[in-house]
Amino acid sequence: MGQQSWIITDVESGVNVEQLELTRREIKRAPASFQVSKQTLRGGLQDGVDLLTVNNGKVSVDILPTRGMSLWQASIDGDRIGWRSPVRGPVHPKFVDLGEPSGLGWLDGFDELMVRCGLESNGAPEFDDKGILVYPLHGRIGNRPAQHVSVHVDDDEGMILVRGVVEETRFHFLKLRLVTELRTRFGETAIHIHDRVENISASPATVQMLYHTNFGLPLLDAGAQLVAPVKAVAPRNDHAAEGISNWCSYSAPEAGFEEQVYFLELLADEDKATRMMLKNAHGTRGVSLQYNTSTLPCFTVWKNTTAGEDGCVTGLEPGTNYPNPRSFEGEQGRVAELEAGGHVDFEFGIAFQQTADEVQGVEQVIQELQGDHVPTVYDAPRSGWNPDEVSG
Amino acid sequence: MGQQSWIITDVESGVNVEQLELTRREIKRAPASFQVSKQTLRGGLQDGVDLLTVNNGKVSVDILPTRGMSLWQASIDGDRIGWRSPVRGPVHPKFVDLGEPSGLGWLDGFDELMVRCGLESNGAPEFDDKGILVYPLHGRIGNRPAQHVSVHVDDDEGMILVRGVVEETRFHFLKLRLVTELRTRFGETAIHIHDRVENISASPATVQMLYHTNFGLPLLDAGAQLVAPVKAVAPRNDHAAEGISNWCSYSAPEAGFEEQVYFLELLADEDKATRMMLKNAHGTRGVSLQYNTSTLPCFTVWKNTTAGEDGCVTGLEPGTNYPNPRSFEGEQGRVAELEAGGHVDFEFGIAFQQTADEVQGVEQVIQELQGDHVPTVYDAPRSGWNPDEVSG
Amino acid sequence: MGQQSWIITDVESGVNVEQLELTRREIKRAPASFQVSKQTLRGGLQDGVDLLTVNNGKVSVDILPTRGMSLWQASIDGDRIGWRSPVRGPVHPKFVDLGEPSGLGWLDGFDELMVRCGLESNGAPEFDDKGILVYPLHGRIGNRPAQHVSVHVDDDEGMILVRGVVEETRFHFLKLRLVTELRTRFGETAIHIHDRVENISASPATVQMLYHTNFGLPLLDAGAQLVAPVKAVAPRNDHAAEGISNWCSYSAPEAGFEEQVYFLELLADEDKATRMMLKNAHGTRGVSLQYNTSTLPCFTVWKNTTAGEDGCVTGLEPGTNYPNPRSFEGEQGRVAELEAGGHVDFEFGIAFQQTADEVQGVEQVIQELQGDHVPTVYDAPRSGWNPDEVSG
Repeated sequence: MGQQSWIITDVESGVNVEQLELTRREIKRAPASFQVSKQTLRGGLQDGVDLLTVNNGKVSVDILPTRGMSLWQASIDGDRIGWRSPVRGPVHPKFVDLGEPSGLGWLDGFDELMVRCGLESNGAPEFDDKGILVYPLHGRIGNRPAQHVSVHVDDDEGMILVRGVVEETRFHFLKLRLVTELRTRFGETAIHIHDRVENISASPATVQMLYHTNFGLPLLDAGAQLVAPVKAVAPRNDHAAEGISNWCSYSAPEAGFEEQVYFLELLADEDKATRMMLKNAHGTRGVSLQYNTSTLPCFTVWKNTTAGEDGCVTGLEPGTNYPNPRSFEGEQGRVAELEAGGHVDFEFGIAFQQTADEVQGVEQVIQELQGDHVPTVYDAPRSGWNPDEVSG
Repeated sequence: MGQQSWIITDVESGVNVEQLELTRREIKRAPASFQVSKQTLRGGLQDGVDLLTVNNGKVSVDILPTRGMSLWQASIDGDRIGWRSPVRGPVHPKFVDLGEPSGLGWLDGFDELMVRCGLESNGAPEFDDKGILVYPLHGRIGNRPAQHVSVHVDDDEGMILVRGVVEETRFHFLKLRLVTELRTRFGETAIHIHDRVENISASPATVQMLYHTNFGLPLLDAGAQLVAPVKAVAPRNDHAAEGISNWCSYSAPEAGFEEQVYFLELLADEDKATRMMLKNAHGTRGVSLQYNTSTLPCFTVWKNTTAGEDGCVTGLEPGTNYPNPRSFEGEQGRVAELEAGGHVDFEFGIAFQQTADEVQGVEQVIQELQGDHVPTVYDAPRSGWNPDEVSG
Repeated sequence: MGQQSWIITDVESGVNVEQLELTRREIKRAPASFQVSKQTLRGGLQDGVDLLTVNNGKVSVDILPTRGMSLWQASIDGDRIGWRSPVRGPVHPKFVDLGEPSGLGWLDGFDELMVRCGLESNGAPEFDDKGILVYPLHGRIGNRPAQHVSVHVDDDEGMILVRGVVEETRFHFLKLRLVTELRTRFGETAIHIHDRVENISASPATVQMLYHTNFGLPLLDAGAQLVAPVKAVAPRNDHAAEGISNWCSYSAPEAGFEEQVYFLELLADEDKATRMMLKNAHGTRGVSLQYNTSTLPCFTVWKNTTAGEDGCVTGLEPGTNYPNPRSFEGEQGRVAELEAGGHVDFEFGIAFQQTADEVQGVEQVIQELQGDHVPTVYDAPRSGWNPDEVSG
């Protein structure tokens, strides 16, 4: 059959498909549990959210066109991967007030496995010297609906591709376009994302991107560990500094736990590719991120092992920057600079390890990236990685 | 037939019924004008608002799942009860900007017979010392859509029950759930609400609730009166103090009338139940509220007899607190304190008096609650009931 | 057949027609390409926007009930008139945060041929002395959905009328109603708008209105010119003052071009009617505005010949006022004062010149309005037309 395509949304040509359901009827050589389906959720906070589910026969992933092509949830052989947010989403952006003076409205919609933060800014909200909000927490792209969504399946190659276009534009200000492609093969235990951020203005622009990737129970059990090829790691603030000796291991959920954040630089191979993994206490399950450090040089670990009711979760966050206020990061040059009409590409993938052998296999790869390099561990916030008000 | 149930919305299980219409076909023993119907309104400011109408054969009440299970309007034997707001709603929350820096966005959606104010806060907007909004007017619960709505009818008992679940959660902050049950019997001239607010966090929380219940013309005619078992009453500010001698009676609508607000403590029986009534000038019609003062110790009367065009209305408002800024009320302890996983219950009902006899009957009950108690009438704002900036 | 009417939306009576399509089947004497159609757009930023297209056989115009009855686009004999905004709309108001503390959220939805600015305020955002937003850029009316929309076609008269009602009300604050009527005859190369703004409060109100009418390429080519009967013209600020000698002619699009704004007073005939035109460099095409200066005494020209990608456009803006912050304009008396129940009428029309002859014809009319009057050209911001902080 070769490649077949289905356009789900295309505002330019006025296309919007209310429902789509592809199975082995349409894709003859697909695995038994293959599925591509699109629906619009109704009722409550999810009213009007488009949900696109892709099951490659092994891994199923829910994509949210209405929320900037975020990944809502995933499962492997039916086991749910991700976390359980106290926010019962997915939440339609109409119920998320990014412009709330606190700058924290973004939190009202936060329940995804992976949500992009950007594109003008991400990180902590920033205020001017009068206290007026300038940049809201984590930016706007995760609450912008896709202007184009399409699915492409190649029966011969056994490849599923989901394409989305999300615009973050404001007249007189930045005009940015995210073109995202998610690929996964039939039966593969991984998904691969290629994102291009285009500056569609005739003037230059600077851009930020952070892949806020989140995992909770049961993977994140007491004793779960991060395995990563570390060049340097530093605590975000004094509270995180207290836990620096255990920065890569997780304790049991604890009510009222105050989040600890660590900023890292990871080692990579000659092609700038790197890999890191979160594995459970017994090393029998893991999830690993693969990404390219040439455009995502920063890596942030967010430890939030509060009670399950409150959202026990860790965030693994490759980015152009650390999630500090936008101006500070800009001063440090931690932005992507785009000329008029220019673009920047980001490579990002998630793979799932389902056995102790697979976990060890990934550990081996990470160990090779580490090689003889001795990680630099800062026991206090690192100058240049932290704005003064945080490190003080 | 016993009890039958219909789920209208349940986001957890993906249920959302676009239209429902129950009549005597489904409920054999129901009165002639019995009706339960659900529709989604379309067009204008009401676009997307779910409207659930329950008619017990005598009283018809419109419930708004999309606006926190508010009661929009009611009628008895076809006569409309309530008021006419200059806001022509019901207004979908997507058109209400709670986070507007003024803190007054809530007013854009205000046209209900009864809207709950809370749960994190209610009352006047509160700003920090830089003038930045911290708590918007009357809180968020009235503009949050229900995650679950169901209707249960027991043909044998002649009972209609509407159940709704509305969540007010923010990651890192409060996680609260309102479970509301509205009950009314076939042919009854009253509705009864049992609300439970649950703290679904593993950390303690404080909660506010206020039942903003509003009546206008024709009931609120010149000479209409409040009848209540009063322990104490005080004006909110100097302007209200000027009208303290007439605090319980109403004048004719007057363009430009500046609102007057009175804070009260009501007497109650041994079970902490109390009752108060608004009756028209001739005492031929009335509407009375019943509620339990153990969890709703405060009562506020809002007199806003401006011109009909501008919303001539009085608000009768049992609450955990007076509608002062959140921090002030918190300092006075006027919040419900919930431990992790804890809850608080609220009992609230509205009954309609349709004849002079019925009005006198309720007056009798209220008089018994009053007994020999002499009301304390403060002729100036009362210390501890008013923040300094208001009482000054 | 006489006049036939179709109600599309009427919230009062619960009417909302999802789709409408009128052709020569319904209107026998209509021109071949006659069309009146209504649809609701789906997907992306336009999700839920109602689009009403009226084609009189010559001119086609898209009306956006969901965005305050704005005119989105127009075409004449299939040639698109208007401009291309970097915002790919039409954008549903749920994605436009007017209350964002910057006051600039309006820009996220700005892509119309003509959008009304008002009714409480228009112009630059205004902040209090703490920096808190008081009036957002260009006000609220352009992001309020119509509560009533109807279409009326008179086959005998060859007349199409579109009626819309949009309310801008806030409890305790202004209660305003815009009743707009758009008329166009079969085959006419013009559209005519009669707007009435009603004060539906029992207290007086002041109102602002500005018709933000926008044109870009291909009409706005290098050498395009404004032709207008000028009494006086002044630059808004020092940057505009630098270009005062060329205020009425346009250069080629230029990346990074900083907008220049000119404030004008136009001459009018005895009935206070005036006319002005934008013509292309060769004078072969033009678009002209007709309006009544008795209620629209101010005229603003916004030159924004930035690169096409960023929205090369000029705004021609008849108004009750200049688009300065609300309080400044109020102090100058540039508002419409409405008594309780009062109203103000605005006449506004757009006509399209398709040949050099037609362009010259309009120039002739404008020349007659100019007569012997010598325009006063201020080479610096004019006192009373500019707030100090701008003119300084």
